[in-house]
Amino acid sequence: MVDEDEARRRFGVSRLARLATVTPQGRPHLVPVTFAASGDTLWTAVDGKPKSSTRLQRLANVGHEPRVSLLVDHYEDDWDRLWWVRADGTARVHETTATGLEALSAKYEQYRAQPPPGPFIEVNLTGWRWWSAN
Amino acid sequence: MVDEDEARRRFGVSRLARLATVTPQGRPHLVPVTFAASGDTLWTAVDGKPKSSTRLQRLANVGHEPRVSLLVDHYEDDWDRLWWVRADGTARVHETTATGLEALSAKYEQYRAQPPPGPFIEVNLTGWRWWSAN
Repeated sequence: MVDEDEARRRFGVSRLARLATVTPQGRPHLVPVTFAASGDTLWTAVDGKPKSSTRLQRLANVGHEPRVSLLVDHYEDDWDRLWWVRADGTARVHETTATGLEALSAKYEQYRAQPPPGPFIEVNLTGWRWWSAN
Repeated sequence: MVDEDEARRRFGVSRLARLATVTPQGRPHLVPVTFAASGDTLWTAVDGKPKSSTRLQRLANVGHEPRVSLLVDHYEDDWDRLWWVRADGTARVHETTATGLEALSAKYEQYRAQPPPGPFIEVNLTGWRWWSAN
């Protein structure tokens, strides 16, 4: 059985999550993000990877509608092994943050080698949902 | 280089996507989905896996706000190999659909063994975005 502790653990050790936000026009927006979660706080950053015009849409969205959702999932062709964990929360943009940078660098060696310039998004995680096939 | 054909191909062969919708209260909602995409049409179904009260939230959301977003991504610790593909579109719920059932069954043997009871969501895909690290 997956309880909340186990759901949070699975979420926290995952390397990638998907961040869903809502645009000012009211449509959903979705990007994969690296992240660091601890307790009820999650950090993600705009990093040094090549940018496209859509990469900063998430920041505009969060400024307009701070409620966000993040998903981690596990797929295998054996559907008895599927699971997912979702964390809903409220986001805030920071131009710089020592705390967020430290959290992200502790999880990803890539960020130790090349710190993300930001901005950073801090999410106050307020609700957890999870599902496991068995 | 990833062009639109390659982006659509990568999306189409992926086994799992994430479906973002917007709730009637205006917050984002996120679930992983199995799906079948061909051309500008995508099908996903409520299937026979154990349900929780949140599993049908997506249907209520789509009825209220038909604009949805779907994401497929690829993660490796070598960040030069990251990529993602996003498809935005407009969704409609069907209680039954021979076309959708056929599309999903062609892709997933699990659906041939145990057809999903539905309802089904049909998405008219109207916009493609993609990103690749190299």
